[in-house]
Amino acid sequence: MIIILQSGASEDQIQHVIERVEALGLKAHLSRGTFRTIIGVIGEEQKIASEPLRAIPGVQDVVPVLPPYKLASREAHPQPSIVEVAGVKIGGGNLAMIAGPCAVEEPERMDTIARAIKAAGANILRGGAYKPRTSPYAFQGLGEEGLKILREAGDQHGLPVVTEVMDPRCVPAVEKWADMIQIGARNMQNFVLLTEVGRTRKPVLLKRGMSATVEDLLMSAEYILSQGNSNVVLCERGVKGFDKATRNLYDVASVAVVKGLSHLPIIVDPSHATGRPDLIPPCALAGVAVGADGVHIEVHDCPERAKSDGPQALLPKQYAEVAAKIRQLAAMFGKTISTVPGR
Amino acid sequence: MIIILQSGASEDQIQHVIERVEALGLKAHLSRGTFRTIIGVIGEEQKIASEPLRAIPGVQDVVPVLPPYKLASREAHPQPSIVEVAGVKIGGGNLAMIAGPCAVEEPERMDTIARAIKAAGANILRGGAYKPRTSPYAFQGLGEEGLKILREAGDQHGLPVVTEVMDPRCVPAVEKWADMIQIGARNMQNFVLLTEVGRTRKPVLLKRGMSATVEDLLMSAEYILSQGNSNVVLCERGVKGFDKATRNLYDVASVAVVKGLSHLPIIVDPSHATGRPDLIPPCALAGVAVGADGVHIEVHDCPERAKSDGPQALLPKQYAEVAAKIRQLAAMFGKTISTVPGR
Amino acid sequence: MIIILQSGASEDQIQHVIERVEALGLKAHLSRGTFRTIIGVIGEEQKIASEPLRAIPGVQDVVPVLPPYKLASREAHPQPSIVEVAGVKIGGGNLAMIAGPCAVEEPERMDTIARAIKAAGANILRGGAYKPRTSPYAFQGLGEEGLKILREAGDQHGLPVVTEVMDPRCVPAVEKWADMIQIGARNMQNFVLLTEVGRTRKPVLLKRGMSATVEDLLMSAEYILSQGNSNVVLCERGVKGFDKATRNLYDVASVAVVKGLSHLPIIVDPSHATGRPDLIPPCALAGVAVGADGVHIEVHDCPERAKSDGPQALLPKQYAEVAAKIRQLAAMFGKTISTVPGR
Amino acid sequence: MIIILQSGASEDQIQHVIERVEALGLKAHLSRGTFRTIIGVIGEEQKIASEPLRAIPGVQDVVPVLPPYKLASREAHPQPSIVEVAGVKIGGGNLAMIAGPCAVEEPERMDTIARAIKAAGANILRGGAYKPRTSPYAFQGLGEEGLKILREAGDQHGLPVVTEVMDPRCVPAVEKWADMIQIGARNMQNFVLLTEVGRTRKPVLLKRGMSATVEDLLMSAEYILSQGNSNVVLCERGVKGFDKATRNLYDVASVAVVKGLSHLPIIVDPSHATGRPDLIPPCALAGVAVGADGVHIEVHDCPERAKSDGPQALLPKQYAEVAAKIRQLAAMFGKTISTVPGR
Repeated sequence: MIIILQSGASEDQIQHVIERVEALGLKAHLSRGTFRTIIGVIGEEQKIASEPLRAIPGVQDVVPVLPPYKLASREAHPQPSIVEVAGVKIGGGNLAMIAGPCAVEEPERMDTIARAIKAAGANILRGGAYKPRTSPYAFQGLGEEGLKILREAGDQHGLPVVTEVMDPRCVPAVEKWADMIQIGARNMQNFVLLTEVGRTRKPVLLKRGMSATVEDLLMSAEYILSQGNSNVVLCERGVKGFDKATRNLYDVASVAVVKGLSHLPIIVDPSHATGRPDLIPPCALAGVAVGADGVHIEVHDCPERAKSDGPQALLPKQYAEVAAKIRQLAAMFGKTISTVPGR
Repeated sequence: MIIILQSGASEDQIQHVIERVEALGLKAHLSRGTFRTIIGVIGEEQKIASEPLRAIPGVQDVVPVLPPYKLASREAHPQPSIVEVAGVKIGGGNLAMIAGPCAVEEPERMDTIARAIKAAGANILRGGAYKPRTSPYAFQGLGEEGLKILREAGDQHGLPVVTEVMDPRCVPAVEKWADMIQIGARNMQNFVLLTEVGRTRKPVLLKRGMSATVEDLLMSAEYILSQGNSNVVLCERGVKGFDKATRNLYDVASVAVVKGLSHLPIIVDPSHATGRPDLIPPCALAGVAVGADGVHIEVHDCPERAKSDGPQALLPKQYAEVAAKIRQLAAMFGKTISTVPGR
Repeated sequence: MIIILQSGASEDQIQHVIERVEALGLKAHLSRGTFRTIIGVIGEEQKIASEPLRAIPGVQDVVPVLPPYKLASREAHPQPSIVEVAGVKIGGGNLAMIAGPCAVEEPERMDTIARAIKAAGANILRGGAYKPRTSPYAFQGLGEEGLKILREAGDQHGLPVVTEVMDPRCVPAVEKWADMIQIGARNMQNFVLLTEVGRTRKPVLLKRGMSATVEDLLMSAEYILSQGNSNVVLCERGVKGFDKATRNLYDVASVAVVKGLSHLPIIVDPSHATGRPDLIPPCALAGVAVGADGVHIEVHDCPERAKSDGPQALLPKQYAEVAAKIRQLAAMFGKTISTVPGR
Repeated sequence: MIIILQSGASEDQIQHVIERVEALGLKAHLSRGTFRTIIGVIGEEQKIASEPLRAIPGVQDVVPVLPPYKLASREAHPQPSIVEVAGVKIGGGNLAMIAGPCAVEEPERMDTIARAIKAAGANILRGGAYKPRTSPYAFQGLGEEGLKILREAGDQHGLPVVTEVMDPRCVPAVEKWADMIQIGARNMQNFVLLTEVGRTRKPVLLKRGMSATVEDLLMSAEYILSQGNSNVVLCERGVKGFDKATRNLYDVASVAVVKGLSHLPIIVDPSHATGRPDLIPPCALAGVAVGADGVHIEVHDCPERAKSDGPQALLPKQYAEVAAKIRQLAAMFGKTISTVPGR
């Protein structure tokens, strides 16, 4: 950590900063420049990352030199982590192909869709039983009943299941029925929920918030990791942008940024990132090419009747087409796609 | 609602759209242009706002003509609402002056700060007992003990109290000890929490999310209103921007946008919007000038020792200076600042 | 400037960085931390601001401690500058009230509008003769003929005139006919044009680009100042945002940021910042309250016939209303509004 | 075009709008809804796209149904265009591999770099002779001397050359010495410059502005096309984002958006989009995977001595590695990479 003092900082102010740093158990190294004095803080700066040093009179700025997360960092864990979801591996050369409808609907529909995506090469089934909807008047999901429908479809077709949790009180139910717990973009900084899923040992799919930096995302992962749950998979699903041509702005480079900073697997979700069926296939391929550990795509067999997000769903045959290209690309990049058998 | 068809839409596709609209209980009015066919939907379009019409083959775009919220809209309630917080009015010509530390700390500190802001003209006391922190290693708040300390300081000095709730399981405790419940920016789309506070009858201070449009904000208010709690006060506190000169980008125009669309009061929070003590006073005045119904400012008597957000706190004497100017401006704009007595 | 080395930087790499710094005429001050080595650069770092030190192997980051502009900085010129536009002062307690149509149209219209805004209290007349239009099929301005019409209307009513230049080849004509030269937002980083207007001695109104940081804006001002023209007035006119409720996102806090960094006057343009007539008056007042040195508003007597930007123009009577409030606020803040007489 | 009237619009206002539409030579089709009246405009709406219909009293909103550009649209030209740059094809299945230093430096360096990139598989050489620098104190380019050096290196190694023009007065020189003229991101809406290069018949590389929507980009292309120059290649190079982990936010989905709207080729520039050598290779591959017609990468043999943008340059051997992968991906997608011979 480097503390930059204001141009007019007095000797007393400089001494006060040094005393504060030393009282916190670190060493201060003073360097007087022509125009500014700077203080290098020597030691584990993360210990004092939350200290309001910038509020000390005479301080102009505080520049960290280490990342504020530890468990999520590549320095702490140089090899890429592999997260296993009921037999399906994600990360470290293993590609996840997650697909399914936005919301869990009736059992027959789930069965139809699950069969189709399995045939197309998907290895994990998604579906929301608790839906975060911007309108209180929109379909809010089937609740625990939906969890059972999802479980049944997954078991039938050999697809581990992932589903979102929004309420800390629902974590036990989701933990019971699902193989992987999703934290949605709107809850990426719902620290209560992060702590709660951190207490389980289920794999967590943590989606990036719409205005979250990569550092914010890794700090949210750190919440889960710090509770002892090391099974975290990150997901890039678009950030807020100014061009309404797409629903969100697909930040594909963030996948490569994460790879440099963290050992955690990261997948892409071109469905939410673009919100447009015509853009999902090319953006899915871009995600694999940039190095993502998986692709998450929403699929529905009758989008115009879907209870949620119909306009951005791919039809099963459209999914099959892009899945074939993803496999081709995965082979070129030396990636493995692991699967588990159905009944 | 207007449905715009693709240039090559077939007669069958057009008929199918008309049938879907009519099956939903609305009328379809066809208009064939030179290059595109459009269908005007006549009736209460909000009924079908969540229907995936855009997913119907042949549809290019769906343009709503009414806002997706009802209870929050000015059309439903043309007069500005006045929300009363234990005797202090907000909205309809009444200005809230909310101040206090980011986090509730020890009782003596709360007492000192409460006395100072009351003397400076504040009429509501803030303080966080449950703190949303980006780092799991940072101070997370005193919990229910903090709620009691806040309550005591407020009662002593004649200041109703507002505090944030993050966990739906903590709503009863916050409801018991506080006069107003705050939903923080990171939880603006935590629909579980919105529903829970909507079930209380306490005034709610709903802060705008960092990537929320004004429409998103009003939809979140609609969640609370739709549960029967009409005491909602909105708060602009900055959105995500590209210039790191300020912590967030203070969207002062959003106050005027809200005034045109909704009857709900809206206040400004220049502390979180800018994150810099030197910018808070001018930005507070800008908020009053644009027509805000209140100003929320963080105050701490020793920022360098604050347990949260110290670097953005004003000192009590700095607060007193800006409060004096706010009163002058409020007088010029014909605003009233209501207060309640202490012990 | 502080150079932060990578965790694995070798002794050779460290020595190489030190040699490069010293070869550039500055001193290097080494500080070995527990996890990172840092090098403080002592001397006039601006000399080496453009050197690619970050490209040296072993370097993780380069953190400047001084701003990259000199002439525009408050350190170089602690007192606020006052720019005089043909007798009308801007800055240092003097408020500019710039108004007029987006584009110069026929002489009678200009005369009508100029008379109306003068009566309302404006002290500078604006009007575009060369118009930057996003469509090649839209009205592009009257050219030099427009400059003459503007000049005549200004002289008649005692209003110095400001107009935009887009082409370096047109600078002499604009210099001849106008009292102040405007650089539009889209040309804020048109360095050829900045250099050209820097060679004149006319006051320049430099509008902030839609994705420019405050530092970018001050660097563009530095281009003009470095050519010897010290008469620069900055203008905040909204940056790109994600909420389509307003045309741009009015960054009112940037005015206060600029005041802290630079001596140059800065005005606000709520017309372009919001693009909505209903939002212009409250946002104009917010601009004055935050400390701006002037307000720029587009006025047209028949917006539905305006050749450019009609939908965002205020009618003369609407302008008169907001101008009266601006004067009231200016008086409260101790600001002076200087004027010059007409014929 | 659809005109939506305000809820309280009077009959007179409605009639006035209809008269205005008809006076402009189009038909108005009235549709009275339950809550709003809408008017469908039938005919070539682009004729009246610049008319200020939204400024007519009683009008709430104006919704276009056709894009505002014609020549750039896919409707006007359904087949993808192929632009030929001195024998090298771009678009329609042909992939451009543009590489070279940010700025043209001494002849030996250009020769070394040109030889290296040719060997690695590049087919077009880039290099700036006129450099847009944010600081007036930074290296501004070698000017016409640089153009000659670039020309010589390109001829020697069989690489057509592309270089940026910033000043309309320099267009003849660039037209003389280069095979393709680049318009930089900061000049994307420099309409004077667009018109000037539109008058030449040289291929133009038009880079997307940092806050430009895809529609803005296509409107700028329309400026060039409307002057009779149909040889336009677009370039995605990152837009302004809030996460400082990357220099810009690489909007890879915009390539697919453009493909749906326009026949013009579009390439990607991961060097400027990310600003980080470690991110350039994966982001280059993402660009090819999403369907780009070329990849533009900055290469320098000694980045720490580069006169411009050294920290983001790839070394020749790093370029050779990513070029090999690009070729592999291009083969998978059935793309051709055309080349011309050197001396």
